[in-house]
Amino acid sequence: MSFSPLINSLITALRCLPGVGPKSAQRMVFHLLERDKDGGRELARILEETICKVGRCQQCRTLCEEPVCRLCTNPVRDHSTLCVVETPADVMAVEHTGGYRGIYFVLMGHLSPLDGIGPEDLGIDLFRARLATGEIKEVILATNPTVEGEATAHYLAEATKTQNIRVTRIAHGVPFGGELEYIDGGTLARALSARAPV
Amino acid sequence: MSFSPLINSLITALRCLPGVGPKSAQRMVFHLLERDKDGGRELARILEETICKVGRCQQCRTLCEEPVCRLCTNPVRDHSTLCVVETPADVMAVEHTGGYRGIYFVLMGHLSPLDGIGPEDLGIDLFRARLATGEIKEVILATNPTVEGEATAHYLAEATKTQNIRVTRIAHGVPFGGELEYIDGGTLARALSARAPV
Repeated sequence: MSFSPLINSLITALRCLPGVGPKSAQRMVFHLLERDKDGGRELARILEETICKVGRCQQCRTLCEEPVCRLCTNPVRDHSTLCVVETPADVMAVEHTGGYRGIYFVLMGHLSPLDGIGPEDLGIDLFRARLATGEIKEVILATNPTVEGEATAHYLAEATKTQNIRVTRIAHGVPFGGELEYIDGGTLARALSARAPV
Repeated sequence: MSFSPLINSLITALRCLPGVGPKSAQRMVFHLLERDKDGGRELARILEETICKVGRCQQCRTLCEEPVCRLCTNPVRDHSTLCVVETPADVMAVEHTGGYRGIYFVLMGHLSPLDGIGPEDLGIDLFRARLATGEIKEVILATNPTVEGEATAHYLAEATKTQNIRVTRIAHGVPFGGELEYIDGGTLARALSARAPV
């Protein structure tokens, strides 16, 4: 390309963002340089600062810039209910429902022996330590309803049962607003077998 | 949101990029923090540097970090043919064809009286000064085939004619690989009226 070397490097660098191909990266660069230099400068500053400062919460392993995150230190939350999720984005999703007042434990992945991801990579030691404090009364397993997520939930359920703590799994079934006709067979079979009295 | 303040600010800052909504911004943040910290750090550095250093070419007004861009200083290019385009992205598009060896003039927009964009905002003084050097033998008007682009081309054609320089407009017609059935009436009418002997 006969373009300015800096513009070329910025187009390449933007492609580290998920979902950004060469065309959209080029569009972003020209947008920033022609119309939003202040926004771009601010983005560079916050990006640098965030990557530098954000680490893991010492209690729940989510991403945060403090040693312990704001959910774990919040005295209003119910510290006897622990919801186990795979990623910080899942914490955000559960928080968005507005219906959960407990705390979280973030695995940062799921068991995947083929990729070499075992229990120790998911912070199982920290998880056991949390249970051992005796503060937790219920563990809600909210890993994804995938093969790996189910296997992870099963593993965690086994690890928790020995501690005499209530273990639950989020319900699987027909999504709200969905139409039976368009729902896959596996989900529908599960919704039938897990039917509840009205 | 109960999330870390830094992560929230980064999600907001990423939304200055075109085509990035709240969901994709969130996905980008978690991708960078969980899987590509180096890429993110590099992006922040290059973004800062590019915004700080990139300005306008003194000859053709395109975006570049040098006082005069590499296309304008390239001795191999044909400096007697000047292609006038609206944006630096258009320069890139013409360069990608591989069929043009002349130089460019970038308007950085088009005439739009309602938005208060007049000839002086498009660097008409610089354009006239380029023509006055006597080096230019042909001006190719490659503004977009929109109402504003056509009006801009018309204005530039008038400004150029007085200088006894050849003025041409890129051809409009049926796109290569297009099917007549799916082409809009205006384009087809133009293709018919601009028919050429085989």
